[in-house]
Amino acid sequence: MDKESKVLYFVTSNTHKFNEINILFQKKALKYELEQLSLPTTEIQASSVKEVALFKLKSINEKINSSYFIEDAGFFIDHPLNGFPGVYSSYVMKTIGNEGILKLINNFEQTEAHFISVIALYFKPLNEILCFEGIVKGKIAKDMRGSSGFGYDPIFLPNDMPNKTFAELSIEEKNSISHRGKAWRKFISFLINNN
Amino acid sequence: MDKESKVLYFVTSNTHKFNEINILFQKKALKYELEQLSLPTTEIQASSVKEVALFKLKSINEKINSSYFIEDAGFFIDHPLNGFPGVYSSYVMKTIGNEGILKLINNFEQTEAHFISVIALYFKPLNEILCFEGIVKGKIAKDMRGSSGFGYDPIFLPNDMPNKTFAELSIEEKNSISHRGKAWRKFISFLINNN
Repeated sequence: MDKESKVLYFVTSNTHKFNEINILFQKKALKYELEQLSLPTTEIQASSVKEVALFKLKSINEKINSSYFIEDAGFFIDHPLNGFPGVYSSYVMKTIGNEGILKLINNFEQTEAHFISVIALYFKPLNEILCFEGIVKGKIAKDMRGSSGFGYDPIFLPNDMPNKTFAELSIEEKNSISHRGKAWRKFISFLINNN
Repeated sequence: MDKESKVLYFVTSNTHKFNEINILFQKKALKYELEQLSLPTTEIQASSVKEVALFKLKSINEKINSSYFIEDAGFFIDHPLNGFPGVYSSYVMKTIGNEGILKLINNFEQTEAHFISVIALYFKPLNEILCFEGIVKGKIAKDMRGSSGFGYDPIFLPNDMPNKTFAELSIEEKNSISHRGKAWRKFISFLINNN
């Protein structure tokens, strides 16, 4: 493997996400060097995060002489909202936000929700596209609580720590049980086995 | 112009929409023959209906030896929902529906909303892509009313007939002021001028 193929590009315009994974990379002493690459990608309307992530990866037209990946996530309120906001989580956050979600739930007692994270990777050494998925299940809180994290974190009570919202956990606690933490760990295991 | 180029394909899997426009076509005695074509298309996540419609048209990979078009629409609650559900109108209808929208509005007094319809046409005689757009503005009703139409019609009070929801109008009344009616009329004027 030549030097060039040891660079791994994370295609994202979100520097926060990039820094999060970069820390994990350095801890693991992987031989890959992580670099951020901001490129235009296309998001489709589809029912699964995996479908959106794969389309997004394949929409990258630039010639990249190395492996590269994207990460996509979604928040699904399976009950009582039939999976809403799903793959449109970012848009719904920008328009109606957590206040809107709580109005829709309206003190419903038996809620069920989950987050999914999908990493879609073009892995040059094998000339293959691979996906790494992480899921976390939980419930919806009656009110917004906590100030860490972002997005839907203040209203999500993970089943593993059912008394705290994601926004009330430290980054380490959240990473240990979160969808994104699980997907990243699968991804890093793969890289260790293919280092 | 040869016979073949006089066929005009409406790419849609929605037979209801197809019949609606087919009636308008026959009334106008246009020389184009309308045919329904059900083909796979790709919808992207974007902020405007026009962007979604153009991408959808361009995503058609089949070789079609004639002109063809698609139609796309969106419902935007500008106030108080920042444009929600917008280009995700179909998905939001399937998940939270009009009941969900009314909970989000929560008896808000000063609502502002609009529907947009965009027809994107590949016009073979000119080898060009053209768009025809129609908009209708209105407000959100306190409750669902009426049984004609579909989708968000029972909660939309058009400014032109502010005491009735779209679902309380006859098809003719609705077509005379609706977003889709306006877009179709622009489209048909174009075809008459290029008949």
